Amino acid sequence: MDKIKVGVVGYGNLGKGVLCALKQVQDFELVALFTRREPDKLGLTDIKVENILNIKSYKNKIDILILCGGSATDLPKQSPELLKDFCIIDSFDTHANIPEHYETLDEIGKKSDTLALLSVGWDPGLFSMARILFNSIAPNGKDYTFWGKGVSQGHSDAIRRISGVKNAVQYTIPKDEAIENVRNGCMPDLKTKDKHLRECFVVLDTNANADLIEQEIKQMPNYFAEYETIVHFISDEEFKEKHSAMPHGGFVFRSAKSANNNNFLMEFSLKLDSNPEFTASVMVAYARAVYRLFKQGKRGAVTVFDIPLKLLSTLSEDEQRKQLL
Amino acid sequence: MDKIKVGVVGYGNLGKGVLCALKQVQDFELVALFTRREPDKLGLTDIKVENILNIKSYKNKIDILILCGGSATDLPKQSPELLKDFCIIDSFDTHANIPEHYETLDEIGKKSDTLALLSVGWDPGLFSMARILFNSIAPNGKDYTFWGKGVSQGHSDAIRRISGVKNAVQYTIPKDEAIENVRNGCMPDLKTKDKHLRECFVVLDTNANADLIEQEIKQMPNYFAEYETIVHFISDEEFKEKHSAMPHGGFVFRSAKSANNNNFLMEFSLKLDSNPEFTASVMVAYARAVYRLFKQGKRGAVTVFDIPLKLLSTLSEDEQRKQLL
Repeated sequence: MDKIKVGVVGYGNLGKGVLCALKQVQDFELVALFTRREPDKLGLTDIKVENILNIKSYKNKIDILILCGGSATDLPKQSPELLKDFCIIDSFDTHANIPEHYETLDEIGKKSDTLALLSVGWDPGLFSMARILFNSIAPNGKDYTFWGKGVSQGHSDAIRRISGVKNAVQYTIPKDEAIENVRNGCMPDLKTKDKHLRECFVVLDTNANADLIEQEIKQMPNYFAEYETIVHFISDEEFKEKHSAMPHGGFVFRSAKSANNNNFLMEFSLKLDSNPEFTASVMVAYARAVYRLFKQGKRGAVTVFDIPLKLLSTLSEDEQRKQLL
Repeated sequence: MDKIKVGVVGYGNLGKGVLCALKQVQDFELVALFTRREPDKLGLTDIKVENILNIKSYKNKIDILILCGGSATDLPKQSPELLKDFCIIDSFDTHANIPEHYETLDEIGKKSDTLALLSVGWDPGLFSMARILFNSIAPNGKDYTFWGKGVSQGHSDAIRRISGVKNAVQYTIPKDEAIENVRNGCMPDLKTKDKHLRECFVVLDTNANADLIEQEIKQMPNYFAEYETIVHFISDEEFKEKHSAMPHGGFVFRSAKSANNNNFLMEFSLKLDSNPEFTASVMVAYARAVYRLFKQGKRGAVTVFDIPLKLLSTLSEDEQRKQLL
């Protein structure tokens, strides 16, 4: 069987995650990793590393590019640009801008005879799939999404900007009692602040005033003031030892009622030691599907809603029905 | 918009569930319920009821038939026979025979210019979807399926066959500690008996010997002897009051490791007050998809693995991307 020739764009956490995920699959062949940095400086000797400026010379040598840039500035430029010459998959996660990103890619893909799969990961991605499935099955109900336990980059940054703070990380944590209320089928009205608490681990500069900084964190509007917030001050060493991992996860629930007033509770959840490695694993499985859809003649842009699950699996359709149905 | 013209075949628990589910959707029109019984005797005045013998006269008047018979004897005959004239959806759940059922239906559908979706419900069905998705994302891991809390018809029947037993119901219950062990990521080796306990509620005939019957239940090979089994003797009244509902549910887990040895835990679960009403709701959503796939030109047989999630939703694709992705 021909292997799927894949290129990886970007060597941040997600790019590293994709290299990790590719080690567990046999049907892909990594052609090259593309970076904006000096290729030699990445210290990678077992794979081909290219400067991103040379990527166009790989046209027709790569079946699909997995884009590992950020949604704020990288992907809005890279996805449309690279789609002119390659099939691509990205993890664009700025929910409000997904429809626009879709339209852009759909037009370019159709013009360029290529295919893009956008917004793949776990949210958007797997959680979106749970939402559309649950809503279609049980139209009379309520959705609940909880995030965590995991690091919020935005909230961590906000703490680090406070004068006197040397380093900080913020975990968003789902509240157990809110989850229990949802599981019990009582369909509570819950705002984001009712569902989550915020736990902060902060390293102070020498001579910084812990009380004042704790107060400043807890009173920060939008970020913390509305939330139950817990602040711990820890040493540099403890920070490095215990808070360098990137765990995450979350829950999607739908609590619904039949026309006969019987309760249905549907739940999908994830607990991940490494958020970027898991997101990368989802992208690799979906890269397989994009390759197959492209071979079937599909052009333009698609989302996870367009892709039948059979296209994700390395098993033949016969084996799938026998082993997994 | 044209409504989807649907026929329901069978008026057991599942057929009643489909009528219930159709009350919550606006895009279906119930053409008729088909039964082997005397139509008048069903006592249904608000819908058209027909004897199943007249079903062929509805050819071209119905877009899809939802088959609500059992997998043991009804569906192996009904699905192939009705597929000659109609698009159908069934909930065939004899796992070992699914490949053969698929081949039969695929051949007939292609010959007859019709489309069949087989084995829809929650297991097979939603649980199968979780299995293929989770396995494709995380190839290095273990699957765990737990069933319950819910009634096992086979085990309830086995108890009722014991002399001196007037009535009985058996609930299969997932063991909390087994679920916790899976959730903790320690990937235990678990057999069905390690994952479930069996709780029985039994009504005795007058003068029956409770101790002997409890012993007989607990020692029944295959059904109970290998399991932790709890037996309660209750009155007829308590039985009718507390054990007439049909709750069910279950869990699908995949516990996996990345190539960097990070743990991923994926979980999908259901808690259902009414097993047949939920299964019926899944079938109605998938009937919508079959109708659309048929309009797109698909013929033969398909499973849930072939169907993109967008086809389940009443929302337009634009709305789906905006609201659910």
